[in-house]
Amino acid sequence: MDRFYMKLAMRQAEKSRGKCSPNPFVGAVIVKNGKLIAEGSTQPYGQDHAEVVAIKKAGKQAQGATMYVSLEPCCHYGKTPPCTDAIIQSGIKRVVVGILDPNPLVSGGGIKELIAAGINTEYGLFEEDIKEQLEYYLSYISKKRPFVIWKTALSWDGKYAASDGSSQWITNPASRRFVHKMRSEVEVVLSGIKSVETDNAMLNVRGIRKAKQPLRLVLDPFLDIKAASLFVKSAKQYPALIMYHSAPKEKVECLQNLGIELIQVSGNNDKLNLNEVLLKLWEKKLYSVLLETGNKLSEAFWKNCLIDKCAIFYGNRILGGENGCLKSYDRKCIDRAVHLSKVKVKKLQDNVLVMGYPMW
Amino acid sequence: MDRFYMKLAMRQAEKSRGKCSPNPFVGAVIVKNGKLIAEGSTQPYGQDHAEVVAIKKAGKQAQGATMYVSLEPCCHYGKTPPCTDAIIQSGIKRVVVGILDPNPLVSGGGIKELIAAGINTEYGLFEEDIKEQLEYYLSYISKKRPFVIWKTALSWDGKYAASDGSSQWITNPASRRFVHKMRSEVEVVLSGIKSVETDNAMLNVRGIRKAKQPLRLVLDPFLDIKAASLFVKSAKQYPALIMYHSAPKEKVECLQNLGIELIQVSGNNDKLNLNEVLLKLWEKKLYSVLLETGNKLSEAFWKNCLIDKCAIFYGNRILGGENGCLKSYDRKCIDRAVHLSKVKVKKLQDNVLVMGYPMW
Repeated sequence: MDRFYMKLAMRQAEKSRGKCSPNPFVGAVIVKNGKLIAEGSTQPYGQDHAEVVAIKKAGKQAQGATMYVSLEPCCHYGKTPPCTDAIIQSGIKRVVVGILDPNPLVSGGGIKELIAAGINTEYGLFEEDIKEQLEYYLSYISKKRPFVIWKTALSWDGKYAASDGSSQWITNPASRRFVHKMRSEVEVVLSGIKSVETDNAMLNVRGIRKAKQPLRLVLDPFLDIKAASLFVKSAKQYPALIMYHSAPKEKVECLQNLGIELIQVSGNNDKLNLNEVLLKLWEKKLYSVLLETGNKLSEAFWKNCLIDKCAIFYGNRILGGENGCLKSYDRKCIDRAVHLSKVKVKKLQDNVLVMGYPMW
Repeated sequence: MDRFYMKLAMRQAEKSRGKCSPNPFVGAVIVKNGKLIAEGSTQPYGQDHAEVVAIKKAGKQAQGATMYVSLEPCCHYGKTPPCTDAIIQSGIKRVVVGILDPNPLVSGGGIKELIAAGINTEYGLFEEDIKEQLEYYLSYISKKRPFVIWKTALSWDGKYAASDGSSQWITNPASRRFVHKMRSEVEVVLSGIKSVETDNAMLNVRGIRKAKQPLRLVLDPFLDIKAASLFVKSAKQYPALIMYHSAPKEKVECLQNLGIELIQVSGNNDKLNLNEVLLKLWEKKLYSVLLETGNKLSEAFWKNCLIDKCAIFYGNRILGGENGCLKSYDRKCIDRAVHLSKVKVKKLQDNVLVMGYPMW
């Protein structure tokens, strides 16, 4: 039954996906005498972790019970007291942990504390599945930069736009809705100034109930963005960040007054240093970024090997023409092509979404 | 139960797919007192049709039984006597037909004869499914040209080759095997001289047990093909046809002596008149063509709106570069894009196959 209850914990975790960053979304269930007593998932940042939610629900029934938790309980004081303390005080007698937390502040310490307190503690159940579930967080911890997801929309024949530049819409409403779901599950949505200008894009989440809004980031080397753009006008409502490398002080201040955060990074002509862009996000504890970049900026991320996951939407169109995707990211010969691992395919009515992880 | 038995008949039909042209592949089952008596499917050209196979198996048990047959029984003398005669003589009392045969030699005549003989006859069950099952045949009858399937293999980013020209292999063995299955189910596999030269392609079916070999057709305007090519060398083993527009008589005779059929069609420089190419195939009663054409020839078929179905294989590669698919087939703006109807998606390990019908 351990496997069954761990699956329940993982399902609980999903309830908090995209809603509790920078904490990882975790699920916990408490079971006693073969009966499910309580479930919990990580609450928004600063509030209870999954373990504490479940323990509070269980109350005295936790005495002598077993807890299943997808990620190792924390053992340090952050915004909340250590979960290990709560578990020990609750009288729980056995803890089954999915995976260890590689966060240097935990990293096996949580398990050690539980064992030291005489609790029967095991770990390593559904390891691979939970690692995939928490891929953003785990990558963030290990790479010192956010997990980067490249999203693009192509015609069947691999064009990102018709030759007159029109691209609205290559994909169908089901695909576009799925993109909004993806936005709601990341911390940052990143776009380039050209795409934002062309589409007058907001980059916020629309049409999803109770969705958390991501931080909207535009890379705008010379602060060309217009104050009248939807992106700027919505800054009071949805968090907005612009990174640039050179701009007059007045423009910076003007945008700040409109509610936008500005960060200066190094750059070269119309390019920003992408490693620095990601480092700045990492420093802000933002652990996942969805790239909704035009072709040029996409190519730059590919050339720098800065993509952790691809989400390629194929719209039901044959377009022809010269606007082929990633032209300047030329692998030259077939043996140097980039493969994706763990390819997954999702049909969205008459569109297809392909997801996978570039194997660098 | 009618629906159940018609499904059985359709499954029987699949057994003859690609094995009985130019006859359509049909399935028939005979049922009596709720018991399945006999099944049959169309045999190779000149041999028994599905109905006759089933009747012979049933023998005297056919008396008073019901027959389910996916396509209207023929009522004319072809290579074999009319199936209607066999049905009437068998003593079958009821016939349920899937769809009418639009072949002008039948076209409702089969049903009329059965009714005239006092047999309780109905039609129109799983019409849409059977029309899809027999799409090659039905299109061939109505369009006066074969059904044309465009097959291509692209990287995720829509490139048909790396920039050095290498393209072996974009797709995985599972996809390539599927292509051989497709070859075995059509009458003709068509390629251009350039592709055949570059890949030294045979265009035959390999790795599929008991597969029927298609007619292999190369469009070769000036008969540039080399006698040493695998295509020519295998002509005695696998049927081969070349269409050209101008070539020295000696070359024509040389190839004929090597076992290749040659047909002259009109053309312009390095292009053949594709409508004439298809007409010649239609005249030969070949009702489906699989295009395994390079980019140039593919574009020509697209520009002439001569594609009935697409089969786009996406290999697990990001290639970049300039070799985008269908570049010169430029739809100019998104509103003029070609849509596919009835999009189907098949995952072939880490590859994806998308199939659909261009809506011209």
